[in-house]
Amino acid sequence: MTIKTIGIIGGGQLGRMLAMAASRLNFRTVILEPQADSPAAQLANEQIVGAYDDRASLEKLASLSDVITYEFENVPVESARFLEGLKPVYPPSKALEVAQDRLVEKTFLNRCGIPTAGFRAVDSQADLDAALAAFGGTGVLKTRRMGYDGKGQIVFRAGDSTAGAYDKLGGVPLILESFIPFEREISIIAARAINGHIECYDAAENVHRNGILHTSTLPAEVWEGTTADARSAAIKLLDALKYVGVVGIEFFVGADSSLIANEMAPRVHNSGHWTEAACVISQFEQHIRAVAGLPLGDPARHSDCIMQNLIGDDINDVRQWASEKDVFIHLYGKTEPRPGRKMGHVTRLTGKA
Amino acid sequence: MTIKTIGIIGGGQLGRMLAMAASRLNFRTVILEPQADSPAAQLANEQIVGAYDDRASLEKLASLSDVITYEFENVPVESARFLEGLKPVYPPSKALEVAQDRLVEKTFLNRCGIPTAGFRAVDSQADLDAALAAFGGTGVLKTRRMGYDGKGQIVFRAGDSTAGAYDKLGGVPLILESFIPFEREISIIAARAINGHIECYDAAENVHRNGILHTSTLPAEVWEGTTADARSAAIKLLDALKYVGVVGIEFFVGADSSLIANEMAPRVHNSGHWTEAACVISQFEQHIRAVAGLPLGDPARHSDCIMQNLIGDDINDVRQWASEKDVFIHLYGKTEPRPGRKMGHVTRLTGKA
Repeated sequence: MTIKTIGIIGGGQLGRMLAMAASRLNFRTVILEPQADSPAAQLANEQIVGAYDDRASLEKLASLSDVITYEFENVPVESARFLEGLKPVYPPSKALEVAQDRLVEKTFLNRCGIPTAGFRAVDSQADLDAALAAFGGTGVLKTRRMGYDGKGQIVFRAGDSTAGAYDKLGGVPLILESFIPFEREISIIAARAINGHIECYDAAENVHRNGILHTSTLPAEVWEGTTADARSAAIKLLDALKYVGVVGIEFFVGADSSLIANEMAPRVHNSGHWTEAACVISQFEQHIRAVAGLPLGDPARHSDCIMQNLIGDDINDVRQWASEKDVFIHLYGKTEPRPGRKMGHVTRLTGKA
Repeated sequence: MTIKTIGIIGGGQLGRMLAMAASRLNFRTVILEPQADSPAAQLANEQIVGAYDDRASLEKLASLSDVITYEFENVPVESARFLEGLKPVYPPSKALEVAQDRLVEKTFLNRCGIPTAGFRAVDSQADLDAALAAFGGTGVLKTRRMGYDGKGQIVFRAGDSTAGAYDKLGGVPLILESFIPFEREISIIAARAINGHIECYDAAENVHRNGILHTSTLPAEVWEGTTADARSAAIKLLDALKYVGVVGIEFFVGADSSLIANEMAPRVHNSGHWTEAACVISQFEQHIRAVAGLPLGDPARHSDCIMQNLIGDDINDVRQWASEKDVFIHLYGKTEPRPGRKMGHVTRLTGKA
């Protein structure tokens, strides 16, 4: 069938950039998002102001859309399944299930042959103490669900007390992950088409600050065998999920160049924002192409670059960024620069690739 | 003052691309355009559905905007002057006056020291015959106003009859321009900031078909002295007009590398669409930066490229274009592919610059 309108669940900056890419390919977009005048809706043709689990809103989204996608991984799985009964939904709801629970995610990655940190389910203080002992007294305690940007995590180093830790994270299902002594963090942005064709962008090297992505640098300073492993992992995961669309997968790289998958996001990803400045086809256009059944674009990179997030008050430096050469600015139309809030990003081209 | 909202007169594809560039810099946009759901309004925050000369609509535009610009050169000068009494309008209305009448335009260009074809006002059949005799029997008869994409023109070669020609163009004020035996057509896209700073993109080499731009190729195959002359002409014109924003100037290049200005457009220009694929800062962002008082961006080109317009049914080739490497696609959200209608464009990157 001919795709004319793409429904997008979520009204944040990722939806905004998807809507912009869609418009350049003549697709109309409808956003489902409870907050009016959302960053995405400002660029979309229409917004349904409604909750992500509101049946009437979901039905309206389906009636207006030829295909439906989403811009965040915490879309209720029930909503995605409901929509799948009405219209094609890409990526499939299975990808949401896997991504929403760190225990399911790591289990699934391992089943695909992709190495991860060791992990144990933690459902009590006793579980925590036992798991920590098994990992030699170090590890990272995380909520299994709804964590992002470093929220809901406790790091245990040798000798740290665990007293009260289980209760501190709210008594929800937790996971203890073994501590990975990594040298670098990289990520792969990859896309799979409806026909199974896969394209991968070059690996980005990522630096986080306060648990939030700070910079992504291309090329990553890693052995080429490491990036080949990362691509191979992406392909295994995408095929296993019969995935359609763009995925972001974060990895830790050890001193021995070994690669450990950290997490996957079933959507366009912050560490792929550089693609809009350094590639002909951005991750946003690539995702739109995938879900709309167009051929995937060439992910080749014409330039080296560094993407930097503008967080909170960083937005006040825009005039300075605008005065610098080779810097591509992208702001998200958010009015309040709250601390920790992603307000925009800049990508500096640093030379020919 | 702080610019938050930019008003744009005109709802076509140029307004659409301006709105998209504005959003990336956190500016809101309001479009004034009589046609609802216009290409520009689909990407803008708001559209005022109203005529370009409707006082109430113009007042509303001024009340919602901190600065006002336009995307086509046939904005009524009276409207621009009216708005200038309410809010800053860039480019200045003087640029519209000059661009809207070929006689005024060529006179102004010559006064700036920029060579043009010879020209004579033609207000009767007798004027036409006298002017043609003065130009050795060859020349191009054009309407002084409202001509674009080759409409409203008659070419006279040696021996052609002029019978009925004056009446054929509607009895409106005409101009006869001497025939320029050019080898190539090039254009310059340049921008002037409020503080007088000027930046020029590299010259594009243009090929027209049926009077409509077909391709723009970078780099233009011309002597570097010729491109220097083109830049120099742009600077003279922009300074003379105390211009703010992006201008497009088309030139003919003779076999002896001489440069003759053909016409200027006081707006972003079709022959500058390549900048969004081959530069960090596109002509659209450059225009927004200029009118909003941000520093102008670096117009350096990272890649060679060819931009090709998709006219009418060319839009049906989009899937084929999408399957080619290094091709950046930009479509305009127009539903009916009428003959001669600009539906989109593609830019192929052809190598490192």
